[in-house]
Amino acid sequence: MSNGHIDTITILNEASHARSPHPNPDETTSHSTKLPKDGSQVAGYPQEGEGTNVSLREFRVNARIGMLTISDRASRGEYEDKGGPAMRAWFDRVLTSPWQAVARVIPDEQQLIEAALVELCDVEGCSLVVTTGGTGPALRDVTPEATEAVCEKMMPGFGELMRSASLKFVPTAILSRQTAGVRGRSLIVNLPGKPSAIDDCLNAVFPAIPYCIDLIEGAYFESDPEQCKAFRPAHAKARQP
Amino acid sequence: MSNGHIDTITILNEASHARSPHPNPDETTSHSTKLPKDGSQVAGYPQEGEGTNVSLREFRVNARIGMLTISDRASRGEYEDKGGPAMRAWFDRVLTSPWQAVARVIPDEQQLIEAALVELCDVEGCSLVVTTGGTGPALRDVTPEATEAVCEKMMPGFGELMRSASLKFVPTAILSRQTAGVRGRSLIVNLPGKPSAIDDCLNAVFPAIPYCIDLIEGAYFESDPEQCKAFRPAHAKARQP
Amino acid sequence: MSNGHIDTITILNEASHARSPHPNPDETTSHSTKLPKDGSQVAGYPQEGEGTNVSLREFRVNARIGMLTISDRASRGEYEDKGGPAMRAWFDRVLTSPWQAVARVIPDEQQLIEAALVELCDVEGCSLVVTTGGTGPALRDVTPEATEAVCEKMMPGFGELMRSASLKFVPTAILSRQTAGVRGRSLIVNLPGKPSAIDDCLNAVFPAIPYCIDLIEGAYFESDPEQCKAFRPAHAKARQP
Repeated sequence: MSNGHIDTITILNEASHARSPHPNPDETTSHSTKLPKDGSQVAGYPQEGEGTNVSLREFRVNARIGMLTISDRASRGEYEDKGGPAMRAWFDRVLTSPWQAVARVIPDEQQLIEAALVELCDVEGCSLVVTTGGTGPALRDVTPEATEAVCEKMMPGFGELMRSASLKFVPTAILSRQTAGVRGRSLIVNLPGKPSAIDDCLNAVFPAIPYCIDLIEGAYFESDPEQCKAFRPAHAKARQP
Repeated sequence: MSNGHIDTITILNEASHARSPHPNPDETTSHSTKLPKDGSQVAGYPQEGEGTNVSLREFRVNARIGMLTISDRASRGEYEDKGGPAMRAWFDRVLTSPWQAVARVIPDEQQLIEAALVELCDVEGCSLVVTTGGTGPALRDVTPEATEAVCEKMMPGFGELMRSASLKFVPTAILSRQTAGVRGRSLIVNLPGKPSAIDDCLNAVFPAIPYCIDLIEGAYFESDPEQCKAFRPAHAKARQP
Repeated sequence: MSNGHIDTITILNEASHARSPHPNPDETTSHSTKLPKDGSQVAGYPQEGEGTNVSLREFRVNARIGMLTISDRASRGEYEDKGGPAMRAWFDRVLTSPWQAVARVIPDEQQLIEAALVELCDVEGCSLVVTTGGTGPALRDVTPEATEAVCEKMMPGFGELMRSASLKFVPTAILSRQTAGVRGRSLIVNLPGKPSAIDDCLNAVFPAIPYCIDLIEGAYFESDPEQCKAFRPAHAKARQP
């Protein structure tokens, strides 16, 4: 089965920024239209001016996923980033609708994490941002604080379910402070640093993610139900573009 | 079995306001004595001046339940309020002690929700306020934020258990941000918007509610144990008025 | 089996204060070296100047556990403190590495609780502080608020698991607002007031506590695995001093 990964056109139109909590006019302008570097168009995507406004908006919303590795050692190159590739491999295996990854590796500094989250949400237009690392109790672990600082709405059910799922494997799962929240049209979800724990957590919470992103008017994601089945209530299934 | 629903006399005496977090002298005065609109007295309830101070206080505390429907469409009349009647039907079926419903329907505006919660707690003297709607991730969903803004104490165990109970039915249960908290002598509990989910959540958390309201010195509630059994520790059972 | 309880030398060196969030120069100075009141040295502990800096630091970190009973009645002597001795008995039974208890009994006053937590963490150098009492919904229950006020990082997984574990015994477990958090090199964990519930909660969360304290660079604790097995990931087991 095709994993659906293609390089999509990223068109951040005015509408997709209108509800951004911290709009930056410069960013909105400079990124209002982004084309693939090779100038190509992507098959199956409507060109500007095609179709109705409604369907255009549906298509224009970016099916982008930000993947933020937060690690002092990985950011200095002392350590191979394993969390980022593990998140990427999970979505490559599970998603069937077109999507694009936007990856970053940064150190465990709260201001840098906040800035990276804001950029992935507001500038890169990612409907989903997943983070790996920095959720433990140690002094340098500040990912949850950075996440809370940039979100308007916290989603406590994600952290509860991820800890509860991880507890089946290790009693130290309660040490993870991972959380999730909404910023504008983006959902941010903290994942653990360890690749096997990333899979356990995504398997637990992903079924609710596509419908959550529908509700915040982000992109439409579809998954291979044999890998991880996304759940949408009956009334929501008709929205599919 | 009688559902115990009667129109009770509402006497908000000074004592019942003394620990209110945001006392409004005007409200306390103007609502210090409220009689049924038809001027009747309620059988079985002591009149002012009867009995000892202690038993009077027990009887005077209002066995009122505020039922707040939070929905843009229902408040405009575009949509029938189904959450409010579902909450009412649940308590009608389960409670056996006398109680009174105070219902409101308002739009998803945080300031209006906060004002309605304050009025139901401080002016109407509801020992319990249940809300329906506005707990999801969408832009207009602000019920948990309004609840937190008016409570002195948050009760995270309610949200955790309601999400955990709903997860048995739908994986999107983690998208509910519902919470609970205490304001003065009132317990506020957020319930979902969907009537069947309201029942699931009340079945999960109600067993702890009457004892919680005892602890904050609210009214005494009794339930039909065959419908939903309220739990009180052995030492608390003697308090029954 | 020896319970490992001895009167340890408490040496709060500069390093152990360096990351304290609210350093108090007077406290740091006056408590920079504390010897047992009888002037003795403790067998098996290195004296100042012995060994390498690294191993000294390991040994100097205080294996102290603060035990804070929060109860108006117990602090006035109207009521025997049962929570404090129950916590002490649990650790006496479970811990096998040397440790020392630092007990306090105070009323349910937020400022006093905060001051006692700060003193146990920053002055007494307790790597772990457990509290009993004050976690319910009543007006005087303010232990979670005091805990949150003095911690830099909250650990929501502790409260979630303790409530979930207690729910197997009583439906009113959701009324407990107990939480946990990190202050500097100290972990603070709220426990219930009732001795049997203290045991249930410690049995649930203790397996993650020694590794959590490793991560915040506190003391090294070992337990009798037949009583309650502490879990450390494979890579962490080598750290043992």
